[in-house]
Amino acid sequence: MSTLEERGERQLIEDFKTFLRPEGRVGPGDDAAVIDKDIVVTTDVVTFDRHFPAGMTYEQFGWYAAAVNFSDLAAMGARPIGFTAALALPPILECQAAYDIMSGIDQCAEFCGTGIIGGDTKSGPGIVAGTAIGTMDGRKPMLRSGARPGDIVAVTGPLGGPAAGFQAIEHGIDCQEAKEALYMPVPRVSEGMELSASGIVSSCMDLSDGLGTALNTLCGASGVGIDVEYSFLPHEQYVEDISEKTGVSLQDLMLGWGGEYELVFTADPDRLKRLYDREVEFSIIGVVNDGDHPELVKEGKRSTIGYGEY
Amino acid sequence: MSTLEERGERQLIEDFKTFLRPEGRVGPGDDAAVIDKDIVVTTDVVTFDRHFPAGMTYEQFGWYAAAVNFSDLAAMGARPIGFTAALALPPILECQAAYDIMSGIDQCAEFCGTGIIGGDTKSGPGIVAGTAIGTMDGRKPMLRSGARPGDIVAVTGPLGGPAAGFQAIEHGIDCQEAKEALYMPVPRVSEGMELSASGIVSSCMDLSDGLGTALNTLCGASGVGIDVEYSFLPHEQYVEDISEKTGVSLQDLMLGWGGEYELVFTADPDRLKRLYDREVEFSIIGVVNDGDHPELVKEGKRSTIGYGEY
Repeated sequence: MSTLEERGERQLIEDFKTFLRPEGRVGPGDDAAVIDKDIVVTTDVVTFDRHFPAGMTYEQFGWYAAAVNFSDLAAMGARPIGFTAALALPPILECQAAYDIMSGIDQCAEFCGTGIIGGDTKSGPGIVAGTAIGTMDGRKPMLRSGARPGDIVAVTGPLGGPAAGFQAIEHGIDCQEAKEALYMPVPRVSEGMELSASGIVSSCMDLSDGLGTALNTLCGASGVGIDVEYSFLPHEQYVEDISEKTGVSLQDLMLGWGGEYELVFTADPDRLKRLYDREVEFSIIGVVNDGDHPELVKEGKRSTIGYGEY
Repeated sequence: MSTLEERGERQLIEDFKTFLRPEGRVGPGDDAAVIDKDIVVTTDVVTFDRHFPAGMTYEQFGWYAAAVNFSDLAAMGARPIGFTAALALPPILECQAAYDIMSGIDQCAEFCGTGIIGGDTKSGPGIVAGTAIGTMDGRKPMLRSGARPGDIVAVTGPLGGPAAGFQAIEHGIDCQEAKEALYMPVPRVSEGMELSASGIVSSCMDLSDGLGTALNTLCGASGVGIDVEYSFLPHEQYVEDISEKTGVSLQDLMLGWGGEYELVFTADPDRLKRLYDREVEFSIIGVVNDGDHPELVKEGKRSTIGYGEY
């Protein structure tokens, strides 16, 4: 029998799935569970140890702890109706730090149209276990399965910002925009609701483990292939700048890193007007085919898109 | 500015309440939040450090982590529809221990009519942050406020078992019944649903912080007094035995200790038949009056019931 360390977190999460109801999910990176009464629930743990990059404030850490959960609701198209925060913080921490964490959670919840409805606190090494509750309001939840050959593939916003932020910190580059993208990711809750309400989205998930991983997951869940056109991948200028300064390729920053909270979705190309009418911002990055994995088309050359590191 | 340790957990929980929506709650010992769509949510953190008495198994720890949350739903009269478990466990722990914790949670959730619908795991010192989600199914949630002078006060089961279990361990007394009461408290979910469905219950809460604390809280929230008749307090024979063997008074075991998960409620005495018809087991322990605090009547003598230690 092995220890948790030997088994590894990813394998353990797989193991835990045997305990789940059919409708359940285990994080990280999975969708939320849709249960009785049209209710959607997701839980994610963030820790000082793993999710507190240099320069981040406690308020931003709180925002982040909430955002990762709301992003999972967004991927389903749910409307958030509550958030609970269970904290385990070091006894030597200043009270102000704890209030700042709660304030960051509160701000993110408010941005997502809801608030903190419950919490608990015990001493611990610096852990926030958040749970976000949402409702579909009768809409059909968006799943990872459902993409069909011929569908377009799109993302809700520019890519590579959080990865650029991480590289900026590592290399001592002063780029506030990149750091903000890393510290305070924006959960695409209103976009997710619009996508599910449009009725034309065939699959959706968030990019918390990076675009490469997401595309592989979508292909696996839907039993399809995806071609992504490299030149279509949207990104801010600062991501290119940081790529140049650090030598980390732009492709890696946009595809290989997590911490990104845009949504990727597939949709019926003949009815895209419905999305434009709803004023959802998105960029088409590729097309679904009858293959079985994602490929990148860059200057006419094809390569397989692998799972990212995160 | 003080540290969390200096501020103290209870005060911190009070501080955190300023971040809550009006419908929210912060544990421990508070009710669950009733939000949009008739949904009830509660979150409680348990830790190896604080909630893992000698002799407890990992499976029982898992059961306990779930039970404390379901008990909060029970106090409102909600029907559980899901449970999420966020774990932060030591990397050196054997995998089997983690599976046992999940299995204990699963068994408790199944006992409460639901299952695990989500989870996450990170490394940590041994923390389970559980969140229970329930629905009122259109019933009115039971609150702490609402007790009226003339109402009877009742509990759903015998008192002092978990406290006796704790004392048995401390004093090396072999009493399996007492230890079971401590290790595997039974959340009174079906009782809570019946109580709320009866329409005659004016207030309710669980005894997680002990009967003394619960009675004080009910009196404060409802603006009433309560007289408890000592000889009415139900208990098992083993609680008396352990009281005798350890010298800890029976009164203390029944009133002064937490870890107890029966419900205490107040109800209209003229319509009690509705509860008997529903076959809810309960023991009347006293009556609500127009005072402002709980008193114990023991052999004709009165004393104020204080908050317990837990």
